[in-house]
Amino acid sequence: MKKDIEQFIDKFKKFNLSKEDLDTVSSNVKIMEFKKGDDVIVNKNGCQGFIYVLKGNLRAYAISATGKEITVFNLNSGDECILCANCMTDNLQLELNLQANKDTKILLLHSSYFSVLKDKYPSIASFVVELLSIRLASAIKVMTQALFTPITQRIIDFLKQNATNNQIQITHEILASHLGTAREVVSRILKDMEKENLIKLERGKIIILNL
Amino acid sequence: MKKDIEQFIDKFKKFNLSKEDLDTVSSNVKIMEFKKGDDVIVNKNGCQGFIYVLKGNLRAYAISATGKEITVFNLNSGDECILCANCMTDNLQLELNLQANKDTKILLLHSSYFSVLKDKYPSIASFVVELLSIRLASAIKVMTQALFTPITQRIIDFLKQNATNNQIQITHEILASHLGTAREVVSRILKDMEKENLIKLERGKIIILNL
Repeated sequence: MKKDIEQFIDKFKKFNLSKEDLDTVSSNVKIMEFKKGDDVIVNKNGCQGFIYVLKGNLRAYAISATGKEITVFNLNSGDECILCANCMTDNLQLELNLQANKDTKILLLHSSYFSVLKDKYPSIASFVVELLSIRLASAIKVMTQALFTPITQRIIDFLKQNATNNQIQITHEILASHLGTAREVVSRILKDMEKENLIKLERGKIIILNL
Repeated sequence: MKKDIEQFIDKFKKFNLSKEDLDTVSSNVKIMEFKKGDDVIVNKNGCQGFIYVLKGNLRAYAISATGKEITVFNLNSGDECILCANCMTDNLQLELNLQANKDTKILLLHSSYFSVLKDKYPSIASFVVELLSIRLASAIKVMTQALFTPITQRIIDFLKQNATNNQIQITHEILASHLGTAREVVSRILKDMEKENLIKLERGKIIILNL
């Protein structure tokens, strides 16, 4: 735990915080662990703070009124998330949720601390601007792909990007929620791809043969 | 022109800039005018700076590799746009374009000036964070609606939001590009709506009867 916090504090050193502020950070970060599939943040719970991913993977996803989902971006170990630290803007309802894709460990600095630091240090504010710009670019890229790229191509891209040793453990339902489409659509396309010997389907697993 | 610049400087006063920096701003803003349909910024031209809309309307839209478009947000008079001022992040390719929806007049403060101010004044950096958060929320809302709300409902919403005195001057093609769909789809749905006496179609114009 001490080592985790040191890793986090190292991140903050680049912002040239005073000794006192660094101490405030290190005594107020909270370590949280989540199991695969756990909700980390659901937007209706409001904003939590600044998140640093120690290990695992989180996906940020938008959800429709009817419960359909699409993944907007992923956070891997070493990634930061400041979405939550920005809900301070009262009239901003950011419709994003965070969910653990794997067993995941994060450090959380509550927004009450982070927001003070952001207002005090231009270096932190600039960092937040940069992260938000990256998230916005990512959201727009996901949107244009979801709207304008054929779903078969998007499934192929997802499999290539997420496979380890040409295998990916995922259900058709979860794959559909990453891509903002229906399970039935994913299942049909995967079956077609299996017939063409591009992939092999096993229970909860997809094996890439030739993509 | 002097009055326009004064209006812009008034906006900047809330950031508590020094007299010297305010003078730099006022001697470096540029007034630009665009006709309806003109491109204001096309992302491949790179980033321009901080934009303040004096009058008119701009739409920020994403475009696919095949040329299909979707409107991500609109800027009306009094609105600011800092997207462009953030492309300073070298590795950020923000796939957004700005186009005049009406005859439009803007003030532009080039990013070389704005970026210096943002790094110097935490108040400006916070303002940028807030604007970016709003844009991100907007992008995510547009994405979930585009993916998960039936296109008929989205057309109805668009007509209601954009009509003046129950009329809206727009072609089916432009309506389609706002909503990220095909002209044929829009035309078919509008014709169905006309048959149901919900709207009346005229050349380049839609009249709302009962929505």
